[in-house]
Amino acid sequence: MKFYDCATAPSPRRARIFIAEKGLGNDIESIEIDLRKGEQLSDAFRAINPRAAVPALITDNGEAICENVAIAQYIEAHHPAPNLMGETPLETALVSEWNWRLEFEGLSAIAEILRNSSPHLKGRAMTGPRNVEQLPELAQRGRIRIGYFWEDLNTRLSQSAFVASERFTFADITALVLVDFSKWVKASPPENMSAIWDWHAKVSARPGCQV
Amino acid sequence: MKFYDCATAPSPRRARIFIAEKGLGNDIESIEIDLRKGEQLSDAFRAINPRAAVPALITDNGEAICENVAIAQYIEAHHPAPNLMGETPLETALVSEWNWRLEFEGLSAIAEILRNSSPHLKGRAMTGPRNVEQLPELAQRGRIRIGYFWEDLNTRLSQSAFVASERFTFADITALVLVDFSKWVKASPPENMSAIWDWHAKVSARPGCQV
Repeated sequence: MKFYDCATAPSPRRARIFIAEKGLGNDIESIEIDLRKGEQLSDAFRAINPRAAVPALITDNGEAICENVAIAQYIEAHHPAPNLMGETPLETALVSEWNWRLEFEGLSAIAEILRNSSPHLKGRAMTGPRNVEQLPELAQRGRIRIGYFWEDLNTRLSQSAFVASERFTFADITALVLVDFSKWVKASPPENMSAIWDWHAKVSARPGCQV
Repeated sequence: MKFYDCATAPSPRRARIFIAEKGLGNDIESIEIDLRKGEQLSDAFRAINPRAAVPALITDNGEAICENVAIAQYIEAHHPAPNLMGETPLETALVSEWNWRLEFEGLSAIAEILRNSSPHLKGRAMTGPRNVEQLPELAQRGRIRIGYFWEDLNTRLSQSAFVASERFTFADITALVLVDFSKWVKASPPENMSAIWDWHAKVSARPGCQV
């Protein structure tokens, strides 16, 4: 397998942590794509992923898998231990459901703020090969949405040791990347949300999360 | 298991078709929530799903699963045949990846159009328990985004008999609901995208897709 990564971006960091938590950091070849230089938009990279985004995982048969959840499922199928996607049908469903919420209600809100307000991203309000104009109102709405989501996540982590389950899973990887990404746009969880911050300290200290 | 449904909404239709394709229509109790009357916002329903949305699946142990992909995985774990989520690691990854794209690039674009332009949805620009104001510009952007996605989907269906694989999977259910939902806001695929329309005719004729 080959893994197309970018050290400075949140989305490929999710796959990078997943690979590290599986202990596969030395087994999967990693290739850096410099998003700040626009390498993802080159013809060479679009031949690998026409959607012009990382992460991308290339299987040993040359198939490209280009979404985090799909990459995680594929790696887990080939390297089942340690389990990160769910041991039981219920745990698997809760990992998926929390991952979905973290993406739709969390990561997409932070991306809305960043991509619709940063002067460096004019005309690039969405990832991908097509240019999309910024909507400043959407950046404002993103701040409202993420505030709501932090409330829900703090409530959840007041009741559960980890996001989807009582143990560390793929949902915690997504949540860690979300919390760290939110700092870029000054939309971090409020300091008094101690359930989030206690969980964040615990997860951030994991060896697999240092990447 | 109990399934909270709504006959008039696209999102629970995905779970309803999934259940029908599994042949479980008579085995899973179905309860109608009338979204047009706002029943999803009642205290009684919020005790079941605090996010005030359908579909919701309640397991025999009383656990609530409230996202389509998680519901599908849970049902498939208990009722493996016919397989709809992927037989091999690669097929499973492609079902997930296409489902993700259909949701983020397809369903969310149509929902943006509808929820940010319909006079009936003023103050309800997003599903869920909190009120969010409409952004008319987001409705316009949704039309641009869905146009791009139809191009990608038509290209894919020119090369593959079904969306994620050469056979019918969960991704086809999401895609069918997307194409039918797009009609509500007059954003259907252009008539000359014959790969989409040929696939749509084939999938729409399936007994499990009549629900």
